[in-house]
Amino acid sequence: MFACIAAFGFPGELYPINPHADEILGLKVYPSLVAIGKPIDLVVISVPAPYVPSALRDCVASGSKNVHIFSSGFKETGEAKGIRLQEEIENIAQEGGLNVVGPNCMGLYIPESRILTWIGASDKSGPVAFVSQSGGNAQDYTNYASERLDVHFSKVFSYGNALTLDSTDFLEYLAQDDKTQIITMYLEGVKDGRRLLDLVTQINKTKPVIILKAGLSESGARAVASHTGSLAGGEKIWNAFFRQSGAIRVESLEEMAEVALAFSHLGKSTGKGVAVIGTGGGVGVAAADSCAKVGLELPALPEDLMTKLREFIPPAGNMICNPVDAHIVLLEPELLGKTLDMLSATSYLDMFIISLHMDWLYSRGQGASTEKIAVYLAQEARKHTRGKPLVVAWRQFQPNPLIRKTLKKVEEVLKSASIPLYEGIPRAMFALAKLAEYHAFKRNNKQN
Amino acid sequence: MFACIAAFGFPGELYPINPHADEILGLKVYPSLVAIGKPIDLVVISVPAPYVPSALRDCVASGSKNVHIFSSGFKETGEAKGIRLQEEIENIAQEGGLNVVGPNCMGLYIPESRILTWIGASDKSGPVAFVSQSGGNAQDYTNYASERLDVHFSKVFSYGNALTLDSTDFLEYLAQDDKTQIITMYLEGVKDGRRLLDLVTQINKTKPVIILKAGLSESGARAVASHTGSLAGGEKIWNAFFRQSGAIRVESLEEMAEVALAFSHLGKSTGKGVAVIGTGGGVGVAAADSCAKVGLELPALPEDLMTKLREFIPPAGNMICNPVDAHIVLLEPELLGKTLDMLSATSYLDMFIISLHMDWLYSRGQGASTEKIAVYLAQEARKHTRGKPLVVAWRQFQPNPLIRKTLKKVEEVLKSASIPLYEGIPRAMFALAKLAEYHAFKRNNKQN
Repeated sequence: MFACIAAFGFPGELYPINPHADEILGLKVYPSLVAIGKPIDLVVISVPAPYVPSALRDCVASGSKNVHIFSSGFKETGEAKGIRLQEEIENIAQEGGLNVVGPNCMGLYIPESRILTWIGASDKSGPVAFVSQSGGNAQDYTNYASERLDVHFSKVFSYGNALTLDSTDFLEYLAQDDKTQIITMYLEGVKDGRRLLDLVTQINKTKPVIILKAGLSESGARAVASHTGSLAGGEKIWNAFFRQSGAIRVESLEEMAEVALAFSHLGKSTGKGVAVIGTGGGVGVAAADSCAKVGLELPALPEDLMTKLREFIPPAGNMICNPVDAHIVLLEPELLGKTLDMLSATSYLDMFIISLHMDWLYSRGQGASTEKIAVYLAQEARKHTRGKPLVVAWRQFQPNPLIRKTLKKVEEVLKSASIPLYEGIPRAMFALAKLAEYHAFKRNNKQN
Repeated sequence: MFACIAAFGFPGELYPINPHADEILGLKVYPSLVAIGKPIDLVVISVPAPYVPSALRDCVASGSKNVHIFSSGFKETGEAKGIRLQEEIENIAQEGGLNVVGPNCMGLYIPESRILTWIGASDKSGPVAFVSQSGGNAQDYTNYASERLDVHFSKVFSYGNALTLDSTDFLEYLAQDDKTQIITMYLEGVKDGRRLLDLVTQINKTKPVIILKAGLSESGARAVASHTGSLAGGEKIWNAFFRQSGAIRVESLEEMAEVALAFSHLGKSTGKGVAVIGTGGGVGVAAADSCAKVGLELPALPEDLMTKLREFIPPAGNMICNPVDAHIVLLEPELLGKTLDMLSATSYLDMFIISLHMDWLYSRGQGASTEKIAVYLAQEARKHTRGKPLVVAWRQFQPNPLIRKTLKKVEEVLKSASIPLYEGIPRAMFALAKLAEYHAFKRNNKQN
């Protein structure tokens, strides 16, 4: 853990503490915290659980107030010994006025300050914060978001058993943090539900709060108890929580990252109407079904609009009633602009999904068609949507490494232009649904 | 299309027909079907829609009974001209006694006979058939299944507007086909619902029938009409269809392939109880929640079993009540065997998911730990499950190409041992749920 912080390039002073060593990574080792002779800004404790109480007493004695306890073996074991140990350290922390992150957690990841107590996280900063009761999830989620979606983080807290600092404390901080625009949370239990409701309701008005609440099934609640020693709470209570606070609900880490991606790059949605533009009949049917599933609408285009589109979209093999399954607009992108001009002028279409079938595009120009449409999407397409959100969904199935290369290129071009890119239409549809729900909630709340 | 069949290595005679050419791909070209002077086993028609009637009349005149019409521009356009054209070719086909696949479809993919009317499909054969109303889905689904999951096909039919041959005709054939063990279907509409119900109910008793029914939302039904000119039918009717027939219901092509993978390699499930073995607290909670979502059970382990497991699983950081989140059994695989021995001996655990966190495994041995557990899973693990189904779920998030390489290795080792491998526990859980539902349906039907 010490090596992790050092390797991430923390620019401040680092003090290794170990009674059995003289030097670690070239730094002088202290036999105890007290031996340093001054208060330390952040103490990271990584010793077996039975030794944590004495380490915490040293924090109090040295005037070091902020502590991250990595060690596990407390309440989450469900066993008498662990429960007693947690009570003991809780007393020490409360009497000594300590701010404790943990125990049983991975701690902090703050790329801007070069703080990281694990390995492999991105060194880029971004507008998204993550408050996570699970350390594994803190690692997996941030890796997924930054590596696959180019979504980066302001502050990440993995806080495990929540001894003194709970999700609500981190939330309060993030509300004020001007580096954080979007807040994502993985919650197992919460100590003060009323405070969580009040805070989320308030913060969500200016910074979208996206929450994955785990452990709502019976076996999930049991897993929560043995993971972080928390009470998961009931489904009905949490349903009410989401309804009242307007917090954005997701069911997996992947969904959370994909929704954060949408909120990072897209403006307001004006309503629920989606147009899907791209190739493929079966996939168009699936798009329509997935649209209904997430509560969005795929309005049929009226006759006059269809007639106008037919002027440049030939009929055979193309359905244009929405999904607008028109091959030609992907091969001749200025026709995509023309299509978007017509569709975005309507009052019933609020958001756009451009569907790219990489295998088919490759078959029409060995990569040249793909690059042409990607560059158009990055540079021109948004000029034709009247500010309405536009995302891109790709699919790729043929085992051809050359096609995979064109996909990499599309990712690169669209990421650099901040256009959200999703694998498959259903994921794009889900993210847009959450964006639309959030803005509808905000509109309705203003009227009240 | 002619080049596709030739390139796939069809060993029989091929006759190109075109009034404007003498030679295509080195073969003598005939000006018309009739000019060949004998009946042809399969005629593939790929001319603009208005020319299809005369091509079909040539089929009748030459005594060629079996026809695949690739061309689109018929009923699916929703326009008067297309609807009239479809009526015209329907009359010709019925009067001439033709068997027509299509129009508006991709046709046949039969790897064993080297028949393929598109590009990029695998040349391997397998036990799964696919009956698809969508040509795009026929391509995407078979590529996904064969490339990513090593699931291969006996016969694939893409039949579009279902002029004379409908899904039920293909089903009847597949029931008798001894190369087909598992039947998968993508349905938009069906002409004779009663016949479909009777056939699926009958066939499903010996060959699992896995169905993706699309277009059940309002906008989905509209998309179905403009894709294959079909009536999608109502949600209630289809719910009853699945309940009565016992057909296995999936919601996406990916799910269909993943369920087919489970049925390809796993024996009977004896019930709903699952044990998840692997590392990660948050992912364990998610596993429990996803288990409940798909209707499976994750039984808590009783005290005496926990005590036995504790003999070789240390407490810190490990929850062992199920999910059995024990790091050590993945690093020392003989302990996994011991764990499986104990768990499979119970009456309430019927299926096993081994969860591999590739990033963590890599951190414990730069690939050696990964290979060790993969080889154990391939060679030994199943000896300890008393014939109960076992699958593996992986996850990998760190942007490290060396870890991705270890994943490739795991895929290779497990595929060669026919152990189903899934990306993430929820997909594994879904596939096992469908396996359990199928065998429960069969058990209940025997009792009736």
